[in-house]
Amino acid sequence: MHGLMMDQPLLISSLLRHAERHHGDQQIVSRRVEGDIHRYTFRDMAARSRRLANVLRALDVAPRTVVATLAWNGYRHMELYYAVSGSGSVLHTLNPRLHPDQLAWIVGHAQDQILFFDLSFLPLVEQIAAQLPSVRAFVLMTDRGHMPARSGIANLQCYEELVEAAADRFEWPLFDENTASSLCYTSGTTGDPKGVLYSHRSTLLHTFGVALPDSLGLRAQETVLPVVPMFHVNAWGQPYAACMVGAKIVFPGPQLDGKSLYELFETERVTLSSGVPTVWQGLLAYVEQHGLRFSTMKRTVIGGAACPPGMLRAFVQRHGVAVIHGWGMTETSPFGTAAVLKGSQLVLGEEERFSVQAKQGRCVFGIDMKIIDDSGVELPWDGRSSGHLMVRGPWVIERYFKAPPQQQALVDGWFPTGDVATIDRDGFMQITDRSKDVIKSGGEWIGSIDLENIAMSHPAVAMAACIGVPHPKWDERPLLVVQTRPGAAVGRDELIAFYAGKVAKWWIPDDVVFVAEIPLGATGKMLKTELRKRFSDHRLPDAEGR
Amino acid sequence: MHGLMMDQPLLISSLLRHAERHHGDQQIVSRRVEGDIHRYTFRDMAARSRRLANVLRALDVAPRTVVATLAWNGYRHMELYYAVSGSGSVLHTLNPRLHPDQLAWIVGHAQDQILFFDLSFLPLVEQIAAQLPSVRAFVLMTDRGHMPARSGIANLQCYEELVEAAADRFEWPLFDENTASSLCYTSGTTGDPKGVLYSHRSTLLHTFGVALPDSLGLRAQETVLPVVPMFHVNAWGQPYAACMVGAKIVFPGPQLDGKSLYELFETERVTLSSGVPTVWQGLLAYVEQHGLRFSTMKRTVIGGAACPPGMLRAFVQRHGVAVIHGWGMTETSPFGTAAVLKGSQLVLGEEERFSVQAKQGRCVFGIDMKIIDDSGVELPWDGRSSGHLMVRGPWVIERYFKAPPQQQALVDGWFPTGDVATIDRDGFMQITDRSKDVIKSGGEWIGSIDLENIAMSHPAVAMAACIGVPHPKWDERPLLVVQTRPGAAVGRDELIAFYAGKVAKWWIPDDVVFVAEIPLGATGKMLKTELRKRFSDHRLPDAEGR
Repeated sequence: MHGLMMDQPLLISSLLRHAERHHGDQQIVSRRVEGDIHRYTFRDMAARSRRLANVLRALDVAPRTVVATLAWNGYRHMELYYAVSGSGSVLHTLNPRLHPDQLAWIVGHAQDQILFFDLSFLPLVEQIAAQLPSVRAFVLMTDRGHMPARSGIANLQCYEELVEAAADRFEWPLFDENTASSLCYTSGTTGDPKGVLYSHRSTLLHTFGVALPDSLGLRAQETVLPVVPMFHVNAWGQPYAACMVGAKIVFPGPQLDGKSLYELFETERVTLSSGVPTVWQGLLAYVEQHGLRFSTMKRTVIGGAACPPGMLRAFVQRHGVAVIHGWGMTETSPFGTAAVLKGSQLVLGEEERFSVQAKQGRCVFGIDMKIIDDSGVELPWDGRSSGHLMVRGPWVIERYFKAPPQQQALVDGWFPTGDVATIDRDGFMQITDRSKDVIKSGGEWIGSIDLENIAMSHPAVAMAACIGVPHPKWDERPLLVVQTRPGAAVGRDELIAFYAGKVAKWWIPDDVVFVAEIPLGATGKMLKTELRKRFSDHRLPDAEGR
Repeated sequence: MHGLMMDQPLLISSLLRHAERHHGDQQIVSRRVEGDIHRYTFRDMAARSRRLANVLRALDVAPRTVVATLAWNGYRHMELYYAVSGSGSVLHTLNPRLHPDQLAWIVGHAQDQILFFDLSFLPLVEQIAAQLPSVRAFVLMTDRGHMPARSGIANLQCYEELVEAAADRFEWPLFDENTASSLCYTSGTTGDPKGVLYSHRSTLLHTFGVALPDSLGLRAQETVLPVVPMFHVNAWGQPYAACMVGAKIVFPGPQLDGKSLYELFETERVTLSSGVPTVWQGLLAYVEQHGLRFSTMKRTVIGGAACPPGMLRAFVQRHGVAVIHGWGMTETSPFGTAAVLKGSQLVLGEEERFSVQAKQGRCVFGIDMKIIDDSGVELPWDGRSSGHLMVRGPWVIERYFKAPPQQQALVDGWFPTGDVATIDRDGFMQITDRSKDVIKSGGEWIGSIDLENIAMSHPAVAMAACIGVPHPKWDERPLLVVQTRPGAAVGRDELIAFYAGKVAKWWIPDDVVFVAEIPLGATGKMLKTELRKRFSDHRLPDAEGR
């Protein structure tokens, strides 16, 4: 016996319809690639998305074909989010920070038919256009005045001209909510990038999860500025969530330096933002150098990498900005956990609270998790046992795009995240390492992230990576690789002494090496594989002595 | 092309699993029918729900059959919510305030197989048991010590004995999320009651909607006390939402007087509650008579009937408790709208804010609405035009339970609510009347609710109903029916003069009659049909003169 409620599919177009009908006057503000500030409403955005859907139709984009974007966070990108998915095609957001060859590989793998791109990526697209045989049309996301006089790209079209010429009547089609809506490739520090194909259903459920009070807690009174890119993991779903709740949304475009962000926060009265630690580092540095304060910012969401404890304190204690430490990945849409205190934790002192908030947090409804050891046995939630983190839920990947049938993404129905983590009895998960980065010493695991955070709390250290290097007795021992701050200096012995009392003795790195620059990947993560290769022959000082 | 995310059905059991795994220590506190306070955790509740699912199996309850409850808000009722729906059967919550004959009719119509009921309803069940041929077993929701020595009910079983004897291992089955989960009948002031059959999917989507920040805004730090009954519209989904977010939940049992509620609010540190205006009236009166204050209450949700403006002010201005005025009905699961300010409304002065918050509010994502005139033409959202309110959404009814095929619940895909409302340009809906209660005077509509609210703001008036009575020239004119407060007195002319300047002149009631008691229906609503019958021959003073 089925229930007798209305059968309405969960479609991305329903978010747009809600925003237009119930929050039509709400603003969308964008710092444009062209340099100026653009401002319009959800009503305008909905009307232009309909025009854009007609443009897609005119470009012969059939339902279920793939349309790519190479763009910053901005209103035209948001129009593409809704027009492409809403009309039944698949939005493929490309990460411009990838190597051009890798980009071309991804476009070919996904068989992207149209490529929409921002003005700043014109040189990049000119460079790779010849390598993109699947792309039938290139659309530059700008107006006639900013179009290049000549370009090496055949069939280069102008976004604004196309949109203006199109009719604004378009009925968003109804279809199965399991239809693919969007596609994002993992950055792939090892092997080829892998595509994650989201559905309308997974996107809508994820949007509910993101908007919940203990997640981003988005509401119509909020002004949200997503620094996390729309070209990667859909800006944590904020372009969708803003429509769901009617929040004002502010797009920073390409200017993510501290000064540009701070100015936008203040002029647009931003109350909530979200980004990776490196961006916040720049913002905090700017604000503190100039003795400024945030006059409207109430909360910031930090994810993408572990939030250094010092940053948490700086926001909370010095600036009165609450920090929501979150975790997720491309394969989880991405929102998985957030470190928002439970009622029972409100009695904790400030230091204890910080140590809870420094964790990646507890599961939003929809996501479940567990930790297992190397042989698959589930480990207890005691805050100490660390194991491979496995997750599942309706917005977690089932398998990769175009993966051969024998390639299973899941293990017993759970997705192995590749992270090593602990879970405490309150359900707060803390990542201690990547599975491939964990240092195995004498049969025990040493988490590299803790060791790196300690090193980075030393004033002379700009960045630190901790890797395992071979050791005759212990299999592996930790080696600390350090990039010092410009003008600062610190010695090996001083750094090793710096660990005293901060971790168990056997966790302390055996040695330190200094490098000019720690290599970073396309999403700003340290490339430890390269470091491991480079230092695979490193002779630890006591490798014979023990 | 389908997305490649995990295919997980939206099931009520997933809420329970989340609560147990991620909020196992969170508390559930109940004032029991037996008189004492009961306290346990989500972990305990989940374990007992599994036992109860085994009890249902032992009682031969097959999936998709209907199990009824006649119970107050309490932990055993919550166990039934999860065990019955979670195991694939249908939970039918009966409203004990209905007439016994109507209850028997509903049980027969739904073909309820088992009836679980609270101790307070033993006399009622003894009275009607013989009229319930479909019911195979009666289970009294209490322990052995409270079982009656003898009872007229054959096969009367003891809840605690059954639960304690059952195994606590039970795997919640996976099935189609469109499967029916629960059933609730409308109170039916006219005609036979009609059943609304919810599904797991509609319930889960509704739960997301209820928990969103601009709805109830439920979070793990919150302690929620639902006064709205679990026997009607699922206590606005709070037993589900508490599990989704891990909020502490406090059940008041049968004691809904001001003193009992206030004590529970204080001892359990309740931060959020929800109820109909009549309950809050009693609570406010108690608090103000005794010069008390709320030490933890931050927000109260008021729905079920329009919140009188005076109550809104009392909570906000005198007690610092925010009021969320909401609207919904059995057919909408029930959550539809909430009057939570938008960002653009934060600049309003206090009086203007009150007038926005006195409206029923704007749509939560998922629900859409429109207003139409008698001929079906859509009316503008100008805050003045009033028309029949139509809604739709994935938790809105498609058709009534066991309705004959020719009986359509919808008009062009929209559900006619039976309310008359305006919608302003911000999307805030305000109910001006029930369609059947609207007073049609000279081709224009007069909303009875406004007129009643004004009368009820007079200190001598306990309750007021405004009905249309026949008029030779204007078709209908308003007649005010008044029940005065004990010991208070007010005259006809004084009340009519009281309207001066408060509404348009032609809206002012033509006459006033005083009654000892205004008749109320099973959900506390005024029975205007009875009043209209009683006063159908009432001669208005100027019926000849105009």
